[in-house]
Amino acid sequence: MTVYQPAKDNDWFMAEFFRVLTADEFIQLMGRFGRLASERVHLDASLGRILSREVVSDEDLPEGARSTVDGFAVRAEDTFGASGSIPALLNLAPAIPMGVMPEFTLRAGEAAPIPTGGFLPRGADAIVMVEYSNPAGPDAVEISRPVTIKTNVLEKAEDARRGESLLMPGRQLRPQDIGFLAALGITELHVGSRPRVAVISSGDEVIPIEHKPGLGQVRDANGHAISALIRACGGEAVPFDIVPDDTAALCRTLADALAGSDVMTLSGGSSVGARDLMVDVVSGLPDVEVLAHGVAIRPGKPTLLANQAGKAIVGLPGHPVSALIVAQVFLAPFLRYLQGGTLEKGPLGCRTTAALATSVHSTIGLEEFVRVRLEGTPDQYVAHPVFGKSGMLSTMVKADGIITIPMNAEGLSKGERVNVIQL
Amino acid sequence: MTVYQPAKDNDWFMAEFFRVLTADEFIQLMGRFGRLASERVHLDASLGRILSREVVSDEDLPEGARSTVDGFAVRAEDTFGASGSIPALLNLAPAIPMGVMPEFTLRAGEAAPIPTGGFLPRGADAIVMVEYSNPAGPDAVEISRPVTIKTNVLEKAEDARRGESLLMPGRQLRPQDIGFLAALGITELHVGSRPRVAVISSGDEVIPIEHKPGLGQVRDANGHAISALIRACGGEAVPFDIVPDDTAALCRTLADALAGSDVMTLSGGSSVGARDLMVDVVSGLPDVEVLAHGVAIRPGKPTLLANQAGKAIVGLPGHPVSALIVAQVFLAPFLRYLQGGTLEKGPLGCRTTAALATSVHSTIGLEEFVRVRLEGTPDQYVAHPVFGKSGMLSTMVKADGIITIPMNAEGLSKGERVNVIQL
Repeated sequence: MTVYQPAKDNDWFMAEFFRVLTADEFIQLMGRFGRLASERVHLDASLGRILSREVVSDEDLPEGARSTVDGFAVRAEDTFGASGSIPALLNLAPAIPMGVMPEFTLRAGEAAPIPTGGFLPRGADAIVMVEYSNPAGPDAVEISRPVTIKTNVLEKAEDARRGESLLMPGRQLRPQDIGFLAALGITELHVGSRPRVAVISSGDEVIPIEHKPGLGQVRDANGHAISALIRACGGEAVPFDIVPDDTAALCRTLADALAGSDVMTLSGGSSVGARDLMVDVVSGLPDVEVLAHGVAIRPGKPTLLANQAGKAIVGLPGHPVSALIVAQVFLAPFLRYLQGGTLEKGPLGCRTTAALATSVHSTIGLEEFVRVRLEGTPDQYVAHPVFGKSGMLSTMVKADGIITIPMNAEGLSKGERVNVIQL
Repeated sequence: MTVYQPAKDNDWFMAEFFRVLTADEFIQLMGRFGRLASERVHLDASLGRILSREVVSDEDLPEGARSTVDGFAVRAEDTFGASGSIPALLNLAPAIPMGVMPEFTLRAGEAAPIPTGGFLPRGADAIVMVEYSNPAGPDAVEISRPVTIKTNVLEKAEDARRGESLLMPGRQLRPQDIGFLAALGITELHVGSRPRVAVISSGDEVIPIEHKPGLGQVRDANGHAISALIRACGGEAVPFDIVPDDTAALCRTLADALAGSDVMTLSGGSSVGARDLMVDVVSGLPDVEVLAHGVAIRPGKPTLLANQAGKAIVGLPGHPVSALIVAQVFLAPFLRYLQGGTLEKGPLGCRTTAALATSVHSTIGLEEFVRVRLEGTPDQYVAHPVFGKSGMLSTMVKADGIITIPMNAEGLSKGERVNVIQL
């Protein structure tokens, strides 16, 4: 076992030799792990996946100039001066059907009916919308508004040019991205592989959720919440049976879990003894380097990060609320990172701002993650800290988002504008 | 065929007898369709699904008072007046292990070591944090701070009470919700069934994305973008082969599609003729009621809604950008609604505010959906309208969000605060 930062720790219930890290230091350490290999997936299976290679266009889109409206392909100069009272009278050229590249050349004084999406004939350089036309017998049309060159025309390669970079690595794919790639005939993509994440809950008092707790027992909320978060981040959760607070059993399960996964999460018991046991067992694994033990956040201080032969072990607090917040702050962005995303402190989620409804106190030296409900409309959101003890799972359920109080702040004042990460 | 709103339409390329509806009228019409049946799923399969029944607690959580910290269970009154210089000296009672409901009663003058999550013994009414204690020989402990009753105690049923409503119908399940339900032993949930959505693209010029377009042909961007959006909304996309602009072929495919799906989306050609064909074919289906044809939004005017024996047919514009925006504004919330969510005009997505970087002009009488890029931090977002012609798919790819310009506005001014829906 190698020690990352051999500084004396004042906090007697943390293992010795570990300085409590800041959240920023902790997330930076996660960047020591290599990203997962990429895999090829069909475009239709790429929603939400993260690109691992740049996508470059092989083609021009569109391949020729197209109309963006229903109307008439014209030479712009033939419409100059046209108005409702003195329209330009143009001769009808052949109508341009969809799906056909017109073979004729539009001559001066002519207008060719063209549908939205139709390709312009040679000679035409603008489109007059149908709203500004009037039939003038079988062979002519009146144009009541002038157009300039390129009006209502999507030019050749205006949407994408052959050789142009379309999407960069690290991009998480949305429906519109998939549509764009489809239009360009890109049917396969290189994306980061989904991390397989072993999920282990330990503790003598922890029982499967299907069971009725005996006196003093609690159900394994962590295993299911963390697994759901892993799935939400594109990972594959691999749940293991609950392990009692027993060194041999823990060692066996950890070895099994590491063999079959890319990342291992472990939520230990919440007691001092159970936490110490977890640290001892992880530290005793072969080829392990404990990178961090303890992070200056609330909730979530007793958090562990270790590297076992290139695989990350993330030790979460035993308390479900703490475990989930630590997982949102560190595990979720780490899973995105492994797939090719950027590594930034979480929680992940849309960001917005709000006015704080009540003052919130905080402890200097701890970065605090405060659950809030949002009320009002987006332009006037008010963030209400969720009332309730920190260990209550119901407070997580009532929360719409999280606000962060920096380490060096004593709190936030009522009315202050805060950034909210929506959960 | 029944006509919804037999008002004369000025717009000559819309089918007769249909007034162009507002977006709000259009979304309200979607509420005429019944929601899908619910199904039972395991808690671990419920992420992102929408609850169709209220979830009520069968149990108290916690089942007894528990400590929220590592420390000592005490009678609060025994600590009154304690300080660093004059600590309270208490006799050690047996240590409380995790996972055990203590059987002894804490007497006056006693303190029992207790781990985070440990259950309080009878007689104890508060917990002193370990930080405020000092060992005083093998049988005693000094307490250096007073606590009041219930300090550091999660009371019986404080998190959830037997018979209490935990989650209401319409709730989309997040990891924290799943953790909460797991803690309460709720392993199965009733959620809205996933809608099966047939996805049909039509048009003589449209070819599969694997093919190289001939002159004048375009690839089926719509089919893949709309399918991805359907998946993002919890639906199951059922793609059909591309249908040419041929009445018999369209009729056959529509009948097939309706037989095997809950909703049908159809993106017709973008030309007037192709649109008319789509309307004719849909109107001609047995037991069909066309509810709307034309909606006053930009992009996306030629949008159709029909009811065929209780199943919704959503006709999308042929242009990929218009099709995708219409699908975001109407189809996405409709799919959520079918699963039990509320029905609100889309796009779905997190909402935030920003200052508009440049003025944007708009047409009175059309609700406009403008693509924007967001720059800056959440508290000072600036929304830059995405430059480029409306038909360019690349503009959708460059956009981080959408702003809406109301029907009755001529535009928005530079610097104005706008609500942004993040895509």
